Amino acid sequence: MKAYMFGVDVGGTTVKLGLFRTTGELEDKWEIPTNTENGGARILPDIAGAIRDKLKEKDIAPQDVEGVGIGVPGAVLDSGVVNRCVNLGWGVTDVKQLLSGYLDGMRVEVGNDANVAALGEMWNGGGKGYQNIVMVTLGTGVGGGVILNGRILSGSTGAAGELGHFKVNAEETETCGCGKKGCLEQYASANGIARMAAKRLAAEPETETVLRKLPKPTSKDIFDAAKQGDAFAASLVEQVGELLGKACAYVSCTVNPEAFVIGGGVSKAGPIVTDTIERYHRKMAFHACENTRFELAVLGNDAGIYGAARMLL
Amino acid sequence: MKAYMFGVDVGGTTVKLGLFRTTGELEDKWEIPTNTENGGARILPDIAGAIRDKLKEKDIAPQDVEGVGIGVPGAVLDSGVVNRCVNLGWGVTDVKQLLSGYLDGMRVEVGNDANVAALGEMWNGGGKGYQNIVMVTLGTGVGGGVILNGRILSGSTGAAGELGHFKVNAEETETCGCGKKGCLEQYASANGIARMAAKRLAAEPETETVLRKLPKPTSKDIFDAAKQGDAFAASLVEQVGELLGKACAYVSCTVNPEAFVIGGGVSKAGPIVTDTIERYHRKMAFHACENTRFELAVLGNDAGIYGAARMLL
Repeated sequence: MKAYMFGVDVGGTTVKLGLFRTTGELEDKWEIPTNTENGGARILPDIAGAIRDKLKEKDIAPQDVEGVGIGVPGAVLDSGVVNRCVNLGWGVTDVKQLLSGYLDGMRVEVGNDANVAALGEMWNGGGKGYQNIVMVTLGTGVGGGVILNGRILSGSTGAAGELGHFKVNAEETETCGCGKKGCLEQYASANGIARMAAKRLAAEPETETVLRKLPKPTSKDIFDAAKQGDAFAASLVEQVGELLGKACAYVSCTVNPEAFVIGGGVSKAGPIVTDTIERYHRKMAFHACENTRFELAVLGNDAGIYGAARMLL
Repeated sequence: MKAYMFGVDVGGTTVKLGLFRTTGELEDKWEIPTNTENGGARILPDIAGAIRDKLKEKDIAPQDVEGVGIGVPGAVLDSGVVNRCVNLGWGVTDVKQLLSGYLDGMRVEVGNDANVAALGEMWNGGGKGYQNIVMVTLGTGVGGGVILNGRILSGSTGAAGELGHFKVNAEETETCGCGKKGCLEQYASANGIARMAAKRLAAEPETETVLRKLPKPTSKDIFDAAKQGDAFAASLVEQVGELLGKACAYVSCTVNPEAFVIGGGVSKAGPIVTDTIERYHRKMAFHACENTRFELAVLGNDAGIYGAARMLL
């Protein structure tokens, strides 16, 4: 194993990069803009350029670099080919071969961004010490990543860990981003929680709650109010916890991980999130997986670069 | 790889044994009774005796045997230790070490019976040609097995693939064998389907159906009637298909297999079973896994011995 490695997390607006020692220490991290013009043709050359510049700056020889791990927002096949990344403008793109070519044959490993973040949390975050975790990311949507025996499970079409698209409500009339209706992320993402709150506030005009004082209560407002004892906000938190606890119970009966790691913006509300989900999970899981642990993610936006680098180990 | 291997499937009443060539051919199969007296203390010695007798009968030297694979009805840890088998009378039992000891150090691999059957179907049955399948067994209960990259996924406490205990009905008043309420197997096992039919027949006294002529319609009666155009029976089949299709959609969003293999007594009704489940799965699965295949199991009671032997390869 060589001394250094890079972890790269490609987002729709910025690319995050990290220079790591292969022993695990993050030596440096920085960002470059994501250039999505011309079908994202500049993205990989820009990343290669940023890596070359960093090597020069730090006086590191390319032969001391183990490789580059890269997480991208799309389905990734085991070959390192990305099926399509709408946010980047990419069609089918052989990221592994192309980026390696731009870096004179340097080793490249590619993963889906949500899966890569899960691997990062397992390596150096909320899932440290476990080898089998499922990460659930409660952000704009609900994402997920399945790590088994320390490795990402991609699935046969790159769709493993898409927990946000569990159908949980047959009565839903609004359409999810995926094109179907009643997906978990329509209720348990930051947007979904705010949407549920707005609907219930309108449907229950008699209920008193501090949330009425806010023009558009966010997921953060709801968790804050629940922590301060607002009964309506607390009942929303229970609803979200029940949906997620049930979904996690399904996941437990399928892959039976050691722990769930809960991340994303919503998880910043802290233990109230994991405690509520865990309580419902325990109630609904098969007895042999009742005691699965629930941990908070800790790496935040750095999970991607950690996990990307970890793919090389 | 040596020339021969044994696959053993331990049930509560009989132990099935198979002598295989390591190239995959089943040379011979037979059964012995399961002696559950004295906490099942005779079961492993009896199996060792049956294997020795077969080697003598076939004039095969022990050094030409790759090993013995064995499936047991209980949770199996990766170490080959069985956590408990209620049906056999076993407490925590180191099956791998004990059986190997009775066979002069022969290699032994141990798996849970449902997982082992899934591996058998992948190797030589309905899942042939795939490396990533989930088997759903619709028998007395609803069992399951997850095979990823050609290997059994046991899970951190041996509970991977326990799809029968997905909670699908929060209103259920009867208790499942697992101790909780509203489990998939209370509706989609052979017993569960018959139970649902009896409830609906009582609740809908005006509905005409050929099932009323039977004292206690079984799952087979219901599928037979549906195939002959009985509308009530067909609506029961739809209910079961919807529950299973939805459960499989959750599994798809978690591990994203290439195919589901549907087995167990209920699956003997044929393509009506897989077609109905597949239709609902397609409707409810995330778009990237909509086209997951549905296959019928073909090995029947032999799946266990096939899969047990396959663990050695």
